[in-house]
Amino acid sequence: MTIHVERLRDDACLIVHGPDQPGIVSAVSALITRNRGNIVSLDQYTDDPQGGGFFQRVVFHRADLSAAIPELEADVAATLGPLGLSWRLTDRSVPKRMAVLASTSDHCLLELLWRHRRGELPVTIPMVISNHTNVAEDVRAFGIPFFHVPSQGPDKSDAEARILELVKGNVDFLVLARYMQIISEDFLDEVDVPVINIHHSFLPAFIGAAPYRKAKERGVKLIGATSHYVTKVLDEGPIIEQDVARVDHSMSAAGLQARGAYVERAVLSRAVQWHAEDRVIRNGNQTVVFTDRP
Amino acid sequence: MTIHVERLRDDACLIVHGPDQPGIVSAVSALITRNRGNIVSLDQYTDDPQGGGFFQRVVFHRADLSAAIPELEADVAATLGPLGLSWRLTDRSVPKRMAVLASTSDHCLLELLWRHRRGELPVTIPMVISNHTNVAEDVRAFGIPFFHVPSQGPDKSDAEARILELVKGNVDFLVLARYMQIISEDFLDEVDVPVINIHHSFLPAFIGAAPYRKAKERGVKLIGATSHYVTKVLDEGPIIEQDVARVDHSMSAAGLQARGAYVERAVLSRAVQWHAEDRVIRNGNQTVVFTDRP
Amino acid sequence: MTIHVERLRDDACLIVHGPDQPGIVSAVSALITRNRGNIVSLDQYTDDPQGGGFFQRVVFHRADLSAAIPELEADVAATLGPLGLSWRLTDRSVPKRMAVLASTSDHCLLELLWRHRRGELPVTIPMVISNHTNVAEDVRAFGIPFFHVPSQGPDKSDAEARILELVKGNVDFLVLARYMQIISEDFLDEVDVPVINIHHSFLPAFIGAAPYRKAKERGVKLIGATSHYVTKVLDEGPIIEQDVARVDHSMSAAGLQARGAYVERAVLSRAVQWHAEDRVIRNGNQTVVFTDRP
Amino acid sequence: MTIHVERLRDDACLIVHGPDQPGIVSAVSALITRNRGNIVSLDQYTDDPQGGGFFQRVVFHRADLSAAIPELEADVAATLGPLGLSWRLTDRSVPKRMAVLASTSDHCLLELLWRHRRGELPVTIPMVISNHTNVAEDVRAFGIPFFHVPSQGPDKSDAEARILELVKGNVDFLVLARYMQIISEDFLDEVDVPVINIHHSFLPAFIGAAPYRKAKERGVKLIGATSHYVTKVLDEGPIIEQDVARVDHSMSAAGLQARGAYVERAVLSRAVQWHAEDRVIRNGNQTVVFTDRP
Repeated sequence: MTIHVERLRDDACLIVHGPDQPGIVSAVSALITRNRGNIVSLDQYTDDPQGGGFFQRVVFHRADLSAAIPELEADVAATLGPLGLSWRLTDRSVPKRMAVLASTSDHCLLELLWRHRRGELPVTIPMVISNHTNVAEDVRAFGIPFFHVPSQGPDKSDAEARILELVKGNVDFLVLARYMQIISEDFLDEVDVPVINIHHSFLPAFIGAAPYRKAKERGVKLIGATSHYVTKVLDEGPIIEQDVARVDHSMSAAGLQARGAYVERAVLSRAVQWHAEDRVIRNGNQTVVFTDRP
Repeated sequence: MTIHVERLRDDACLIVHGPDQPGIVSAVSALITRNRGNIVSLDQYTDDPQGGGFFQRVVFHRADLSAAIPELEADVAATLGPLGLSWRLTDRSVPKRMAVLASTSDHCLLELLWRHRRGELPVTIPMVISNHTNVAEDVRAFGIPFFHVPSQGPDKSDAEARILELVKGNVDFLVLARYMQIISEDFLDEVDVPVINIHHSFLPAFIGAAPYRKAKERGVKLIGATSHYVTKVLDEGPIIEQDVARVDHSMSAAGLQARGAYVERAVLSRAVQWHAEDRVIRNGNQTVVFTDRP
Repeated sequence: MTIHVERLRDDACLIVHGPDQPGIVSAVSALITRNRGNIVSLDQYTDDPQGGGFFQRVVFHRADLSAAIPELEADVAATLGPLGLSWRLTDRSVPKRMAVLASTSDHCLLELLWRHRRGELPVTIPMVISNHTNVAEDVRAFGIPFFHVPSQGPDKSDAEARILELVKGNVDFLVLARYMQIISEDFLDEVDVPVINIHHSFLPAFIGAAPYRKAKERGVKLIGATSHYVTKVLDEGPIIEQDVARVDHSMSAAGLQARGAYVERAVLSRAVQWHAEDRVIRNGNQTVVFTDRP
Repeated sequence: MTIHVERLRDDACLIVHGPDQPGIVSAVSALITRNRGNIVSLDQYTDDPQGGGFFQRVVFHRADLSAAIPELEADVAATLGPLGLSWRLTDRSVPKRMAVLASTSDHCLLELLWRHRRGELPVTIPMVISNHTNVAEDVRAFGIPFFHVPSQGPDKSDAEARILELVKGNVDFLVLARYMQIISEDFLDEVDVPVINIHHSFLPAFIGAAPYRKAKERGVKLIGATSHYVTKVLDEGPIIEQDVARVDHSMSAAGLQARGAYVERAVLSRAVQWHAEDRVIRNGNQTVVFTDRP
């Protein structure tokens, strides 16, 4: 649910994953207790009780957290390392830095900026980048820097290089808010942070361009949107969130697109929030999402 | 909504479709008025105001309907024929005859039989046919004839021939309630009535076998079901209805299947009801559905 | 669905209601045909086939509509008057003028302004009025006039008088976008245009103040929002639209409110759109809504 | 999700609640580990980090569980007793015994019997009791004992006494599947097991009799159903689950009732499943539900 950063002082989030084995939950909770933390919430999942993967998210409160992080990390490493488990410890009062890439469509972008202004997204937004200029004024009205990086012609390498200059080292993840440009493998390798996309269909239906037109042609009765991590295969990355809306024969492809915009902005917002709150753990080409959504 | 056949005495349904042109609605309503009918509901749709197709469904009340049908039909033919329009006039108090084909799964089958017993489906069910026997007792407990037509081995022609003997001339449409057998083109040609299928995915995602396993592998966050008319291309027929349910990483493929069963039975039931109530008009590989569903 | 005003040139909407009787649909469609209109869509409803009320909405295309309106109105009056029917004829290319009253909350207000800017609401917005100033900058960024009318203390008559000066003669309907002030009977009498409110609960549950707190105390598993016409009895006016969102035990009253904001903005937007498109007909303390929503 | 009892061998469920304090999660997980259990899932909730209530549900696997239960219980008591915490330990392979009370409506009853037959409800059903006989044949077709206990006239004490004779000592909880009789305080005191009801409205809207008629009169756009524990105040007990369905002006009160039946059976089924799986913890007049539902 809504996360106001000010309420998160001294809250830590520990993500653990790796091979399942007896006693992990106990080891983690003992670790937190002996470091004077108090568990606020705990989610845990094993994908196969017999030799499967183990995934855990624990939020705990610990007075003077920021000072204690080094010793906490040392204890986590000493405890979980021998078990072959990966882990990540974050101070929840430190927001992630998110860059948004947009194109001409404003609905996903503005929804993110507005939710951020309401204090519902635990991120900072150091920049919005677009290959068009029409959203510049809206973005700057939110007090957020806007950069125009044109992307014309088939060769996107100049544009990608310019984007890399802007984001490299400055952001913790990227969001493609209907960016409408295919990201190269080289860019993904270079940028080396998670990239979240919103695709305007219910994947794996209607992969690629013009999904609303394809949906109209197929005569579907629901349209959808999918938010996923970007990988090197188009529209095939791990899915974070999906949703649908009911449509009928009377709606044109443009009508589907207009209705779909409301699904897209909701789905992307939830995916971004869950990523920012460390609720999403990648598991191969799938995701484990410890959602707050009832 | 719920249709009790007893309430439908003297109610007629007129379906009209063909090339759009000015004055059709007026011509049809004048026709009904001069035949002493009173319009109860009217749905109308034009897929393109410029030279598109016209689709209309009118329900009207007319005292002594069954006696008046011949002259009504003559007037409709004289009025709509010159405009190049197709039409179909039905007496709503005459239920359609529906055969159900099932396999081992009972959830879609039992839902249809139960809704029928509640008076919510305006059909008669002269028979249920299955290639297994496990549902026989349940079917007969509803007072409905059950026929076992085994379907083993790759050659389905004997089974299809036996089914044709049972249904030919005896039913107005067929429902495949998780029948799990591919219907041959020859069968479709021979049976010559609409065949409605339920596919256990959100088409066009996961066409073909084992959609829940594929859904698990792809890591989708919603599963779905699709009811469509069967055509000669597998899972490609005109879609009547679709719906979805939310799932998460913790559910196995078997878990998706168990949850999906509830979506399947609801989607198929709605599709069957709308078909039985003449609410569905085929438009190429799409459907126009004048649904009663708010 | 989405209505772009530019597409509505020469489109008329005729609303008819009154005592049901045979032949109304026929009379209306003949009227449209003889005035060279072509019916685009037609919705019709009778609340009781035996002596009930009749409700109809017809959209039709008629070349040179604005010039033809006087003669159309004369023909409608001559045709429907003798049948005791009320009617309303509108040129769909003439948007309704909508004033929005807001308080400190921005979510419903901004959603309306944003949908309007996208061309999805067929209205003009001559003014936004608030008893606070925090939304002024956002409103003016949309190019819309903002007026601050403070409303302090128990006596609201000065504030209401000032609002009346602003809106009287200048608007076709008012929207209370979380205005949070009770409107007096005198104001309703004076303003004499429809007033649409959004109440932050699923009416008739949690009438009055602090519905999210009451919802938390009662332990409900869904929260809701209701848009209705304002009448002289608080929260008792005819309901236009409602929706809900799932919640659970872990959410505080503030959490319910944060999630509810998304329901409120969606419900109010749909109600406003349907009102602006003449899809809502009041029927005593209920509404007939010929929704475009599948 | 779907629970097949055979899969639950050696699975235990431990429910803990009471005053929150640091270290409970750690103490519980250490306890499970030292008793050679392996945590399968863990849900935990604190309603107020400052001195609030603590609620936990842990499922763990322990070889030879049934033999180990006495020593497990002793350790739990020794560990949690000093902390002032209540607890309940159950062997998940031992299904709860559920009696169903019904009246003439069959939809909620049959849905429970059918889900039970599919292996989705971890219960046994030693009896169905009705004050009518129309469902007797259906119930017995499922192999479940049926008892007819007429309930006529204003004095229900004879009927309640007869029901008490049947259920006392024989069941772990009662389900009122549209039983339509008000349960007396004396009966609740005597029966001394949880009683789950389904109310055919979205509580707290439309408390008491005839909610669909009231919903029609109020002109709501959604109808709902609520499952709750029965307490001494009518329709005021702790809510377990709620859901809604969309309706419109065209539906009569009977139509709302017909559509509502599908909401009722789904809501009651989920509430029963969650209760049977020890997912519901009462918290005053609210519930904490550690749902499996994404």
